[in-house]
Amino acid sequence: MIDELNSKVIELIKTVNERTLSRMKEPFNVATKTNYNDLVTSVDKENEQYIDDHLRQLDPGCRILSEEGFGTKDISDLRGHLWIVDPIDGTLNFVKQHDHFGIMLALYVDGQPTLGYIMDCTNRRLYHGGPGRGVYVNGQKITAPENLGLRAGLVAISSPLILENVHHLPAVAQAASGLRMYGSAAMEMTGILTGELVGYVSYLRPWDLAAGRVMAEELGLVVKSIDGSKPDVLSSNLVLVATRQVSQDVQKITG
Amino acid sequence: MIDELNSKVIELIKTVNERTLSRMKEPFNVATKTNYNDLVTSVDKENEQYIDDHLRQLDPGCRILSEEGFGTKDISDLRGHLWIVDPIDGTLNFVKQHDHFGIMLALYVDGQPTLGYIMDCTNRRLYHGGPGRGVYVNGQKITAPENLGLRAGLVAISSPLILENVHHLPAVAQAASGLRMYGSAAMEMTGILTGELVGYVSYLRPWDLAAGRVMAEELGLVVKSIDGSKPDVLSSNLVLVATRQVSQDVQKITG
Repeated sequence: MIDELNSKVIELIKTVNERTLSRMKEPFNVATKTNYNDLVTSVDKENEQYIDDHLRQLDPGCRILSEEGFGTKDISDLRGHLWIVDPIDGTLNFVKQHDHFGIMLALYVDGQPTLGYIMDCTNRRLYHGGPGRGVYVNGQKITAPENLGLRAGLVAISSPLILENVHHLPAVAQAASGLRMYGSAAMEMTGILTGELVGYVSYLRPWDLAAGRVMAEELGLVVKSIDGSKPDVLSSNLVLVATRQVSQDVQKITG
Repeated sequence: MIDELNSKVIELIKTVNERTLSRMKEPFNVATKTNYNDLVTSVDKENEQYIDDHLRQLDPGCRILSEEGFGTKDISDLRGHLWIVDPIDGTLNFVKQHDHFGIMLALYVDGQPTLGYIMDCTNRRLYHGGPGRGVYVNGQKITAPENLGLRAGLVAISSPLILENVHHLPAVAQAASGLRMYGSAAMEMTGILTGELVGYVSYLRPWDLAAGRVMAEELGLVVKSIDGSKPDVLSSNLVLVATRQVSQDVQKITG
């Protein structure tokens, strides 16, 4: 049942990606949400509606938590099949760069991370996996990243956390081999899954974290709130995703 | 003469890129230079020797300024044909990510920017051009980026400048639509050429700047030291590459 659903969702996300890449070449509408660089486009909305409609057909009775309002209203518990959907992650990059954005889906069953999908759209690179299943890039199994420490690797930390000196994160960046900022949780999460980054810290909403979390945990990486607690699936969290060693190194700095 | 040289150098940089991508799959030697994240690999050295040897054959009598010591010794003036070579730009990314690095070449004739080449290695995307020639990506002409202001676009600023609050650059980042860090001048320069970024600030050595400068100036972008002076071709400079509007916006903040 889950295997069949998995195959169908892989086809769904590939289809949505091809639609997205075609739509990107035409004019699309851009609107601001909370501030001038919190954007939503007509493509975000079209994607979400398309994904949510298809998930309802593929997985009848499921509930859907999604960014732009086409999902299930007022979700306050984790029972049953819950899909968490980010129709375009990195909308600012999508609008300004036509590159460096992703589509993310995750299935949680009775609160348990079950399936995760991240599409690196312009590279047509699909990451998917889940507990006991392994993690794959376009069908090729990924080996778990080496357990490197902070000094041996590159970290991504989102810019507000650095510019506003939250939780001594500039000191974390200083202690790493280098600091990177890609501007899309999808891009940074895939960097963590492949070992291109050893740590990632950002303030993430449920749809920014859900898919990456499923796959990162399957690869033995640490996913936790910066205060050490387990991130809540339905809330926004200041999250660290990292190797076990980096998780310890960061804790020494952030306290 | 310059046209024929240009065609041959395009073939040279493509050849070097294929060698680089093959060599990346095998083990290579990594050594540190000034500190633990200033790296040089055997691939940097092999590339430089290969490029310098071929440039000497293609352009007899030229002088070569290159990073790892295979070039002409003690260059102190700009007369004649001067090639400036970065055999791998973003060595830390090359080592840690196997992605997000470049190869850069530039020809200056009697001090005049004449030809520039940046290879985005893993994407096999070659940017090249020069004054009056236009700028091309894999043979496709680029249109000059729109003259956007700081608030309308994404900027790249290298991490030490942000973490050490140099010249109020964190305030520049705050005033932009978003901050990005890719960790390779080649990647950030190509972002500027295509308009994916509206500004880039970094402390750049001659081989980090030379190629991008040729192409950025051809596209009507501003290339200047942060103090407003013209960057010296043979020295390291704290450089801004940006749209004209962003250049003015940044100057209001950095003073």
